Amino acid sequence: MQDTHISLAHGNGGRYMRELIEDLFARHLANPELDVTADAAQVTLDSDNILMTTDGFIVQPLEFPGGNIGSLAIHGTTNDLAVSGAIPKYLSLNAFIEEGMEIAALERIIKTLAETAAEIGVKVVCGDTKVVQRGEGGGLYLATTGIGTLNGHVLSMHNIQPGDSIIVSGPVGDHGIAVMLAREAFGLRGDIQSDAASVLELCLAAHKFPGLRFMRDPTRGGIATVCTELHRATGYGIRLQQQQLPIRDPVQSVCDMLGYDPMYLACEGRVVAVVDANEAEQVLEQWRSHEDGQQAAIIGHVDAGLNCVVMETEIGGERILEELEDDPLPRIC
Amino acid sequence: MQDTHISLAHGNGGRYMRELIEDLFARHLANPELDVTADAAQVTLDSDNILMTTDGFIVQPLEFPGGNIGSLAIHGTTNDLAVSGAIPKYLSLNAFIEEGMEIAALERIIKTLAETAAEIGVKVVCGDTKVVQRGEGGGLYLATTGIGTLNGHVLSMHNIQPGDSIIVSGPVGDHGIAVMLAREAFGLRGDIQSDAASVLELCLAAHKFPGLRFMRDPTRGGIATVCTELHRATGYGIRLQQQQLPIRDPVQSVCDMLGYDPMYLACEGRVVAVVDANEAEQVLEQWRSHEDGQQAAIIGHVDAGLNCVVMETEIGGERILEELEDDPLPRIC
Repeated sequence: MQDTHISLAHGNGGRYMRELIEDLFARHLANPELDVTADAAQVTLDSDNILMTTDGFIVQPLEFPGGNIGSLAIHGTTNDLAVSGAIPKYLSLNAFIEEGMEIAALERIIKTLAETAAEIGVKVVCGDTKVVQRGEGGGLYLATTGIGTLNGHVLSMHNIQPGDSIIVSGPVGDHGIAVMLAREAFGLRGDIQSDAASVLELCLAAHKFPGLRFMRDPTRGGIATVCTELHRATGYGIRLQQQQLPIRDPVQSVCDMLGYDPMYLACEGRVVAVVDANEAEQVLEQWRSHEDGQQAAIIGHVDAGLNCVVMETEIGGERILEELEDDPLPRIC
Repeated sequence: MQDTHISLAHGNGGRYMRELIEDLFARHLANPELDVTADAAQVTLDSDNILMTTDGFIVQPLEFPGGNIGSLAIHGTTNDLAVSGAIPKYLSLNAFIEEGMEIAALERIIKTLAETAAEIGVKVVCGDTKVVQRGEGGGLYLATTGIGTLNGHVLSMHNIQPGDSIIVSGPVGDHGIAVMLAREAFGLRGDIQSDAASVLELCLAAHKFPGLRFMRDPTRGGIATVCTELHRATGYGIRLQQQQLPIRDPVQSVCDMLGYDPMYLACEGRVVAVVDANEAEQVLEQWRSHEDGQQAAIIGHVDAGLNCVVMETEIGGERILEELEDDPLPRIC
């Protein structure tokens, strides 16, 4: 492949597209199931309990401290399977590429995507590329669909009981702030890295406990959105303790300066679990023994006497967390 | 939902996004597996032979005679499963929506998408929506991933033998020309409809024949691209007879006027089959008995004595069909 930038001919089904797929996508993503000349890939699953999920990615900028849109796509989709109790197995990949995109940047992203998939043990078995005219694409959008097999009991918001504990696996808001700083829109600089990471190991550890009711990764809308969804689905209130919530100092500082509420900021490598209170300390201990869960914390509980999501503030007040309306940080994932 | 146009807040994970998903997507796509509050959908398959495929869609305009980007997404993805010998079962859906898109147009498209899925018997079980800033999205891009179960013997280009017949299920080029005319870029008008349709019934009929080697839907790059791919994969040449190729008169007229070669135009409801010559007439007869296959034709054969794709023209000459390089009609699917 001789070109340095993407042209419309890279999307036409002919030679340029074939070379782009063979020389860039297939070279990094190679695996036995991936046959770039076939219309569909044959896959095998060792269980009949199959879970399927999908995600689109439009993050800006495409590369940021701690990751890029490629690693984000793999983590986002495999994490959705992991929090559902599944082991991710196979992925599909769609790339919408903007005419004029630098091929070296595309290659960095697909290389990271392939490495991230390999780390998690998931295979990209089919894909499609489309090229849109200059100005109509933000560089690159990705869509990934994942299938996996259920490993343990079925998790559901409907299992949640009053008194259940709410645990978060680590500090919140790093991804949102890291991406925002990478935009350089505020003239701020910082060394905050995205938390983007796989939560599979944490989810597998928690799933061994029969008292695990439900898990979710707090992406768009953050922890507050997970809690308002729990409230909406169960009818029970949620009571959170602000002082229990793990937040890194630099993230809190940026939030204080710019008026962001860390409760609504996206994480891409954290998981929130709702667990029978009798098993919460054990789950917490398990998580804290993992590298990615060292700062895990019980941040609140399900309260049948409440009809909203309430956060007890550090100075002893109470604050209602409403469903998100305006968008504090668009294009975060 | 009160809004008439999409705003960035429809993509933020909060109330507007939830309402858009509940009131528009979920309302039309409702099925038992679709739970818009879950991270992943549970699906069951009645076979271990699973096939997976994916496609992105950036067609312009979004609505055209004979379909829209919604029906195209369903047909494109289920057809890729069908030509691989699978019965499509479940789909995921990603929508990248441009800020400012008219919600009524989005609803027309998703309604058509849902109706098309229902006709084919496939369920959309998971989805994701993202909103990009005005100007960065072409209105709407879709990505769909499908899984299905294999129904019969495995098809592969590697099964192809010298002497095998090449059959096309109907007239070519209607989709490409219909979309091109809908752009009104040439001041031309016509009543050409896209051929976008499911090829599942035709594929199931052909798959009953043990002599069926391989099928493909001639989308981007058209029949010529299918043939150059066959040549590239097998090493055998392909010999086609131009006079056998079914083309509607209005499509041929537009091609003559504008210099398009119908061999390279996209179809979205046709299938090309490579079949043992001894069974070709029977497959042809089967296809012609279907409503969508009435104009099916044997258009050529695999020729081990050739090292290229050759078309014998109506006036007795020979023309080599090369792999597509420049893009005659971008954004066709």
